[in-house]
Amino acid sequence: MAETPQLKRKREEEEGENENGGAAAAFSLSDLRVRRVLRESARDKAMFLHAEKIGLSGEGTDAVVILEKTPFQEEKIPDLLKKAMKAELQMQNDIYCTFYLSPPPELSEIKATVVYPATEKHIQKYLRHEVHLIRETWEDYQNITLPFIQSQSFSIQWVYNILEKKAETERIVHENPDPSNGFVLVPDLKWNQNQLDDLYLVAVVHRREIKSLRDLTAEHLPLLRNVLQEGKEAIAKRFGVPGSQLRIYLHYQPSYYHLHVHFTAVGHDAPGSSVERAHLLADVIDNLAVDSTFYQKRALTFPLRADEPLFKKFQEAGKV
Amino acid sequence: MAETPQLKRKREEEEGENENGGAAAAFSLSDLRVRRVLRESARDKAMFLHAEKIGLSGEGTDAVVILEKTPFQEEKIPDLLKKAMKAELQMQNDIYCTFYLSPPPELSEIKATVVYPATEKHIQKYLRHEVHLIRETWEDYQNITLPFIQSQSFSIQWVYNILEKKAETERIVHENPDPSNGFVLVPDLKWNQNQLDDLYLVAVVHRREIKSLRDLTAEHLPLLRNVLQEGKEAIAKRFGVPGSQLRIYLHYQPSYYHLHVHFTAVGHDAPGSSVERAHLLADVIDNLAVDSTFYQKRALTFPLRADEPLFKKFQEAGKV
Repeated sequence: MAETPQLKRKREEEEGENENGGAAAAFSLSDLRVRRVLRESARDKAMFLHAEKIGLSGEGTDAVVILEKTPFQEEKIPDLLKKAMKAELQMQNDIYCTFYLSPPPELSEIKATVVYPATEKHIQKYLRHEVHLIRETWEDYQNITLPFIQSQSFSIQWVYNILEKKAETERIVHENPDPSNGFVLVPDLKWNQNQLDDLYLVAVVHRREIKSLRDLTAEHLPLLRNVLQEGKEAIAKRFGVPGSQLRIYLHYQPSYYHLHVHFTAVGHDAPGSSVERAHLLADVIDNLAVDSTFYQKRALTFPLRADEPLFKKFQEAGKV
Repeated sequence: MAETPQLKRKREEEEGENENGGAAAAFSLSDLRVRRVLRESARDKAMFLHAEKIGLSGEGTDAVVILEKTPFQEEKIPDLLKKAMKAELQMQNDIYCTFYLSPPPELSEIKATVVYPATEKHIQKYLRHEVHLIRETWEDYQNITLPFIQSQSFSIQWVYNILEKKAETERIVHENPDPSNGFVLVPDLKWNQNQLDDLYLVAVVHRREIKSLRDLTAEHLPLLRNVLQEGKEAIAKRFGVPGSQLRIYLHYQPSYYHLHVHFTAVGHDAPGSSVERAHLLADVIDNLAVDSTFYQKRALTFPLRADEPLFKKFQEAGKV
């Protein structure tokens, strides 16, 4: 399919594409040699490959190939049950049994996306970086994590721009302007607001000295209760989604060190909503109400990619 | 295709079949008639069907059939790129292009899980419904949830079959046979063991009276610590995955009321690993070490589908 000049221009502006032709003409997958697996997703049934296309003189040119099995189509199911071959019985226990079926080619489909020629940047983009869980004690926080955070110069000017109404003003869904116990609620950039299915908002607090969960004490309970209560009410009013259908949580580690709370649709498997990174605001409030120093005592688990600088700090300290 | 008598006999010898019939005998998928789609997941490439098996006299018996495409296997990829047919070019834009491939049957696989005979409860379990979060206090547990659990007769014969070595014996990865503090570690049925990417095992404890998180006290710390420590070691030894790459957690509500712990690869977005349902075992242990009655005091959040009977109980009590 030929691209339109408009589309081409837009992509060049956005990504700065190369000028040299692209996937072009008669491209055959059998010309590709697989070099390695960059990443795979068993859940999505997808695989990301670094491949190369071998030219006439034997030289290879890098490509990224993404293979993904396609979803089932309802109308083909009866045919599939009839025509699938080699239904091996794998397991049988009580009323449950498991088979493996081999469907005929016409009932099986794989989507292949090819990036060719691919640059090193494309390859890095799809490469899996190994993830480890860190179990951080309060001492680890003080000795490893806190000095690391303080040594970094994360710019959070964009957060201050929102709080000071210098940006995204028209996007604000709710504000409590109190400097100690107030916050601003805005749609997250990951949500395009076209459907409620993947609803995603963020409450950013006005106070600037709370870096993360680790800084919270009972002193912050009024603020946290405001976020929970007013956040739910504002979302019910604006979007019609009741509080019982919202997952309301903090991240640890957060992606920026200014306290903020995530509101996502409970039916949406939002990235970062897994138990190893998310902390329900209701639990945080209960923990602080019972023990004001809960988060200055307890061990917290969080994920780190093996290539992240903080991971290396934990490794150097012999904690991984 | 019907299973071979050899395969059937082999499984009987290895696993010891259950006594009460179950899926049993020569079960053929082509005997199934699809009644309707209960749910589908485009992301997971899965489809949940309400089907019926037609008997000799023409009468139908309900079954649930779950079809799911299987993840790619790295070693088969070169073959796949060579042998896949009808690589239709779908889209081409600059360096990006998309094809649809039809792989030969030997390179294509679908996992079919059959629940047969299926009750109305099984069918409802797989039907798609609206989800709400419940914030259950200890009083709610005593007044609403516990009486509900006790009024139900969930059969967990399959759990006892595993513990008593009547089924899945050859699948056991590790066992600590102690009746109070021991457990059995087996691969979860969701994991086909072909790749480590979506590694998923379950530790089932030998003690039979612990229904869920709500029953845990400091008395269970030795058991929980055994599960955490030995589970990690056994998985590292058998599969080469270190403990830091495992997400180890309990569900609340669990899908069956016999204590079990989930072990999933941290890189795998396993269903049920979200913060509203999963509780890290390390956190559970720390909570109980600080306060033996933590889970008999604190509010717990969990998701319920609007059609579930327990949801109606909470609704009737004015708690949703």
